[in-house]
Amino acid sequence: MAGGALNTLERPQDWMPEQLLRVEQALERWVPNHAPAGLGVSMRYAVLDGGKRLRPLLVLAARHAVAEGACDQVLDEAALRSACAIELIHAYSLVHDDMPSMDNDVLRRGKPTVHVQFGEAQALLTGDALQALAFEVLTPMPSSIPESLQGRLCAILSRAAGHAGMAGGQAIDLDSVGKRLDEAQLRQMHRLKTGALLLCSVFLLSAPVLAQDEDPTPKQQLADIDSSLKEIDRKRGDAEAIETLAMLSENASQARRDAEALEKSLQ
Amino acid sequence: MAGGALNTLERPQDWMPEQLLRVEQALERWVPNHAPAGLGVSMRYAVLDGGKRLRPLLVLAARHAVAEGACDQVLDEAALRSACAIELIHAYSLVHDDMPSMDNDVLRRGKPTVHVQFGEAQALLTGDALQALAFEVLTPMPSSIPESLQGRLCAILSRAAGHAGMAGGQAIDLDSVGKRLDEAQLRQMHRLKTGALLLCSVFLLSAPVLAQDEDPTPKQQLADIDSSLKEIDRKRGDAEAIETLAMLSENASQARRDAEALEKSLQ
Repeated sequence: MAGGALNTLERPQDWMPEQLLRVEQALERWVPNHAPAGLGVSMRYAVLDGGKRLRPLLVLAARHAVAEGACDQVLDEAALRSACAIELIHAYSLVHDDMPSMDNDVLRRGKPTVHVQFGEAQALLTGDALQALAFEVLTPMPSSIPESLQGRLCAILSRAAGHAGMAGGQAIDLDSVGKRLDEAQLRQMHRLKTGALLLCSVFLLSAPVLAQDEDPTPKQQLADIDSSLKEIDRKRGDAEAIETLAMLSENASQARRDAEALEKSLQ
Repeated sequence: MAGGALNTLERPQDWMPEQLLRVEQALERWVPNHAPAGLGVSMRYAVLDGGKRLRPLLVLAARHAVAEGACDQVLDEAALRSACAIELIHAYSLVHDDMPSMDNDVLRRGKPTVHVQFGEAQALLTGDALQALAFEVLTPMPSSIPESLQGRLCAILSRAAGHAGMAGGQAIDLDSVGKRLDEAQLRQMHRLKTGALLLCSVFLLSAPVLAQDEDPTPKQQLADIDSSLKEIDRKRGDAEAIETLAMLSENASQARRDAEALEKSLQ
């Protein structure tokens, strides 16, 4: 990577297992069990499924990189909520992407997809409720992170998820069926469809760090990570970002296969 | 109504046309024209369709009731953004509800539904992007309303839209197909499916009003409206709330028909 700001993560085995556990426990707590008419069951089925958690790990890696060892409860809480919120957006997009009118996939990670398991209508509602839940997680009541920070986090996540981000990329993907996209079009599609949420992982963490005025060091480190990711994004779509994450991930082989598949689609 | 706090709106013809125009102009401005691959076109098709705007009007009526004639730019801006955000959530729910796996409706307000006009996959993405847009509208960049207020508005709207609100009510509705719900179950379904967003209209306005410490009068008026709506909600689901709105609406006959249909389903 250009900036090398992730060097603090040279030994991912030191922090990865604990961070993954924090994410899983938080998702377990925040994705409701008791929503009406089985909605909680299908939401939990969609989220608590052993995903690789690449996006949450990137949020937590950035938090680790900017303030390694520093004890900051607000930053920790904001990072964990951001990590889970971004995973909920990712999870809802997979539920909707798998549906018959989109990719029509029947299996995801060896399990029947949500619409196969619960029906199409329930899958539609499950995705819708997961998107709303992402914003619920970012806005705890009572507030465990400052309300002004909650506002910034919602601003960043909504834009990464919406028409100018992930949903826009999916629209390009959909529109491209049966067409041959040139390299620039493919780059734009991947930049929005996958890259927007990956970049968002760092932007989300920038909100609490920028709110802290005292120490310029974390801001500079964050700017380094941010510019590294932007550079990757500019050069090669999101494939290399996923490779970078793969280096951070114990589950590197699967992530590398994802990266290779993405690279192949760019060739 | 019990509290009588909407008495300030006895002459709706004095404020309705101007407020409806403000809502239409704001939606026209905030629902994007240039989203990728035709996504903006389908989003605008779904929203700028001559809806009755009952929910936005309730937000603006509450703003009018709590501070009639008072000039308060933050309150005005927060109310207008809340009004449009709640309409975007309502609009996305209609797009998804109309889809073949849900109600399979082919016409809405005399026009082909979104999936008929643009295809199922595009309708799915359109609804998804409209939900994200609701949170974008609540979190303007640069900030025209305080960021702490943005956080509160997102907290309220996400909960009204999600598993414990609108999406939860839709799940009950879906689960009830082919079953006979008793009165309590019907009430709960309507309370969540439609009532949560209606109540949310007032809760949204309560956020900026509660942020103003100086004058207790608006808070009392808001509490009156809130308790009136809760009383209506407790007694009769959302049917009477819609009738109340109908009195505020120039388009009263259509709203009254909606209310009657809802009442009929409760009998």
